Amino acid sequence: MSDYRAPIKDMRFVMDELAGFKELSSLPGLEEATPDLADAILDEAAKFAGEVIAPLNRVGDQQGCKLGADGVSTPAGWKEAYAQYREAGWNGITLPPEFGGQGLPDTLGIAAKEMLCSANMAFSLGPLLTTGAVEALLTCASDELKAMFLEKMVSGEWTGTMNLTEPQAGSDLALIRSRAEPQGDGTYRVFGQKIFITYGDHDMTDNIVHLVLARLPDAPAGVKGISMFLVPKFLVNADGSLGARNDAWCISLEHKLGIHASPTCVMAYGDKGEGAIGYLLGEANRGLEYMFIMMNEARLGVGLQGVAIGERAYQQALAYARDRKQGRDALTGEMLVSIDKHPDIRRMLMLMKSRVEAARALTYYTSGLLDRARHLADAEERKKALWLAEFMIPIVKGGGTEMGIEVTSLGIQIHGGMGFVEETGAAQHFRDARITTIYEGTTGIQANDLLFRKLMRDQGATAKLVFGEIYATVKTLTASGKPELAAIAQKLGIALKMWTDTTEWLAANAKTSLGGVLTAAVPYLSLAVVVCNGWMMAKAALAAAGYLDKGEGDLPFYRAKLASARFYADQMLPQAIAFAETVKAGDAAIAGLGDELFDA
Amino acid sequence: MSDYRAPIKDMRFVMDELAGFKELSSLPGLEEATPDLADAILDEAAKFAGEVIAPLNRVGDQQGCKLGADGVSTPAGWKEAYAQYREAGWNGITLPPEFGGQGLPDTLGIAAKEMLCSANMAFSLGPLLTTGAVEALLTCASDELKAMFLEKMVSGEWTGTMNLTEPQAGSDLALIRSRAEPQGDGTYRVFGQKIFITYGDHDMTDNIVHLVLARLPDAPAGVKGISMFLVPKFLVNADGSLGARNDAWCISLEHKLGIHASPTCVMAYGDKGEGAIGYLLGEANRGLEYMFIMMNEARLGVGLQGVAIGERAYQQALAYARDRKQGRDALTGEMLVSIDKHPDIRRMLMLMKSRVEAARALTYYTSGLLDRARHLADAEERKKALWLAEFMIPIVKGGGTEMGIEVTSLGIQIHGGMGFVEETGAAQHFRDARITTIYEGTTGIQANDLLFRKLMRDQGATAKLVFGEIYATVKTLTASGKPELAAIAQKLGIALKMWTDTTEWLAANAKTSLGGVLTAAVPYLSLAVVVCNGWMMAKAALAAAGYLDKGEGDLPFYRAKLASARFYADQMLPQAIAFAETVKAGDAAIAGLGDELFDA
Repeated sequence: MSDYRAPIKDMRFVMDELAGFKELSSLPGLEEATPDLADAILDEAAKFAGEVIAPLNRVGDQQGCKLGADGVSTPAGWKEAYAQYREAGWNGITLPPEFGGQGLPDTLGIAAKEMLCSANMAFSLGPLLTTGAVEALLTCASDELKAMFLEKMVSGEWTGTMNLTEPQAGSDLALIRSRAEPQGDGTYRVFGQKIFITYGDHDMTDNIVHLVLARLPDAPAGVKGISMFLVPKFLVNADGSLGARNDAWCISLEHKLGIHASPTCVMAYGDKGEGAIGYLLGEANRGLEYMFIMMNEARLGVGLQGVAIGERAYQQALAYARDRKQGRDALTGEMLVSIDKHPDIRRMLMLMKSRVEAARALTYYTSGLLDRARHLADAEERKKALWLAEFMIPIVKGGGTEMGIEVTSLGIQIHGGMGFVEETGAAQHFRDARITTIYEGTTGIQANDLLFRKLMRDQGATAKLVFGEIYATVKTLTASGKPELAAIAQKLGIALKMWTDTTEWLAANAKTSLGGVLTAAVPYLSLAVVVCNGWMMAKAALAAAGYLDKGEGDLPFYRAKLASARFYADQMLPQAIAFAETVKAGDAAIAGLGDELFDA
Repeated sequence: MSDYRAPIKDMRFVMDELAGFKELSSLPGLEEATPDLADAILDEAAKFAGEVIAPLNRVGDQQGCKLGADGVSTPAGWKEAYAQYREAGWNGITLPPEFGGQGLPDTLGIAAKEMLCSANMAFSLGPLLTTGAVEALLTCASDELKAMFLEKMVSGEWTGTMNLTEPQAGSDLALIRSRAEPQGDGTYRVFGQKIFITYGDHDMTDNIVHLVLARLPDAPAGVKGISMFLVPKFLVNADGSLGARNDAWCISLEHKLGIHASPTCVMAYGDKGEGAIGYLLGEANRGLEYMFIMMNEARLGVGLQGVAIGERAYQQALAYARDRKQGRDALTGEMLVSIDKHPDIRRMLMLMKSRVEAARALTYYTSGLLDRARHLADAEERKKALWLAEFMIPIVKGGGTEMGIEVTSLGIQIHGGMGFVEETGAAQHFRDARITTIYEGTTGIQANDLLFRKLMRDQGATAKLVFGEIYATVKTLTASGKPELAAIAQKLGIALKMWTDTTEWLAANAKTSLGGVLTAAVPYLSLAVVVCNGWMMAKAALAAAGYLDKGEGDLPFYRAKLASARFYADQMLPQAIAFAETVKAGDAAIAGLGDELFDA
């Protein structure tokens, strides 16, 4: 086990240089988001995450959650830590002041969220789900429901959940069977079983607000017949006090590979009698639409988990490598050096570091776009920012999470045999990270989202905008006359060409060879990930080189950033060439073959 | 959890078409290895692995081993299963008849070993270590020690262990501190602590034969002062009966990410008094050399674990994908199809299958070389086969194990949320696989072995032989006039060019830019892996196309093999281009920078 120290320097660099944080305070509604405030928030968040939440990560993994007669109990110390989290006001920092939040931009909030998740991914899931539920209520709840629930959810006094999945309905929500019967008094009786419900029950708050997808009696079949209901664990009286226990129960807990302390519940609604009392959110049959409105933030949040867990694994591997002495330095001949001196360990550490930095940059950059999509004055500009953000989100989610798994695996590798021993803690990161490519839409679903929604909905117009920006970066790097920037430009230029070529190939083949295009979707996403991440690192290199030229600021940091950017270009960008070849191969190898392919 | 069915068809295809099994029975000492015997052995092994050993895999994971006052106890049913294993004679099938073995070629034995490991990796480690210990005794034990121990180890009545690692001495064995004091009567007193000792204690046999690396009082420092000792758990009387308990104890068990049922012991020698009684094996100070003689087989065996666990994960993912119904078929429009019909699931299944097949082919091929290295009549030919095998072994070990981790991860991904739930069993394979890139030499150590030992010891002569053979395959494929073979040839040709180019680059830079070459070692190994695996699949495609032309044999199998080979070429071979770029980038990004790289 190791400590967690928030990488504030890099977070601030990314916020300022890549996500445009400095300009945000000039936008209406974000006037308070000044650099000074950012400093204060980051410092406090770092302290809280490192001192209060991180030390609970291991005990959470070891003890996990337990289901007893009174419901789910969290591991030792979690309840108290959550109380501290809530009392310090962390839950509402980016939520609307109208309901007690601080209304800060996501571009600042995301750094605090990364810290919480690095410190303890299982812990951070509760607040993540609550924020999602708050956004759903903001989107579609009546004023009455808002008044009844929002303030306590923004403060974190109550948590929220999302109930989508049923045993037969996972990626395919059209198959949802849970149902809701209107009672004539404006309330509904909800019946059904939901699985994989994160923080579906726990002992950290007095109440839990479940958002449940279900069908009304007259609903059309398929996804267009799904409505969203609010089902509280305890009913709420008119004066805001808690009323009767609702018929919404956790009936079992999953035993999982990772995030042991995050209770993954099987939830039964209305199983004991006349149905769980629920309230319709927004209009009937539009439940899935409302869910998708929250999806941007949720998927960005899961992409961020890849960054956060990767960062934690990196810090742990670095600490171990600096401490562990083994072997001779191949370059200097020095005997018994710490293993961080060995070139292959150095390569792995750099790979971890540069991949985490690149994914952080892309995630924060996208967060900056979302802030602009909400706050820019001009409607056309807002829409442009939103579409850009939405184009990036499958890339952030798919790329960040796959990176998280690979980087935590490198973290184990650097530890050697000790990495396989659970007490070391490196294995927990690897286990925890493994869920991220699955929930909130698998990598395959992200790839289809990128291809069939984000790329095609405007005939590639947003994609061309991105290509143009990346090309501009390549030109600027080349024009700099600096060999280290030109080296990055050369690799980024080739990678970009691969991306534009395959995009054309996909457009040309989408109708005539749908099977090929669908087979190529994930490799295409991987290609987009490596180019966008490489682009962010190229921009980071430009900014760092600028400061180094001026001799301004933290020069060792800028030198390290330049090296990290070049390392990404050398080690990762060439993959774009391989992915492009794979995309263009489509399904030629297997087209027309059936089950016999696998039977053999 | 799923059943395991040994892929006999593919094993037999690989043995016959790629590993040259058919010709082995013409070699002196291998006359009995006929196709009929192979059929019988494979059928029996498949039955035993599937029916007796596979069902214990999950209970082993759940219960793990326990350390009590009487030593280590294995999970429920393991003792009985081991007795069956031993009584059926599986332990000695490839070991010398002189000591009770069956003397069958490794090229046949490896299939049985793969089955045992697919069925239950934790179980298979006991026999793997015992075989290694037997080989050590065959190499360097006196006739007296051989007579005392070998027969019972060959039969499996006693198991063996390898004691290398100490807390301060992992990859760097020069740091070993365990010591042995001569008693003047031909025996020694051994003192020291060893860690990570697989099957260091257990309750499945009456005795355990520990091979322990330790230093004699007058030994030189470093690796040239290490000797190998045999330290039995119970001393053996002249009549073969068991004598006193030796001072060799398991003092704790590691709590690991995977292979829970394989006891990973901390062993204390001579801790209770006057030292554990041991016998010197071979000559003093040559212990490490003896260990390295066994290393070929051991590393091949661990590469095989990647194949075995990948195969098991593939079978489980396929069964799930065929059972789980979700979504509409994008190509036919059919509603609610099993998910194996979705292109991205199909891509993942094919990726699992073709990567496992490719790694199996390379592993068995290398095993065929080892058989030839032992049995060919001509000494020069034997040496050539040995050097070829030794060249391939880091590629088999590094490639097979990294593949195993990636393929078991795909297995989880195909299961979606269920993959993250431990009861499903997919997660166990992922956890079990994670050790394989670490033990018997990390991937980084395999890369250095390939580069600095196997490639350079003959100035690339063996490498050129391999390049020439691959080139010949490319030519044959191209000359076939078949578009599906020509498509493979085109990609294999480019990948081979990448390998030869980077090999030249490394040779040219080894002296002037050692840091760059060392940084490039693992990417270079990865490049070699993808080319060698792709080569095997290309040869498989050629063989399959031949049978299809003749309309002979199991045609659906050959069609599937052709598709699998093409899929490997399309999805994997292009990576060679990316690895080549990465190799040639060397350490340009970080050369000359120190700790400040990571501090930022």
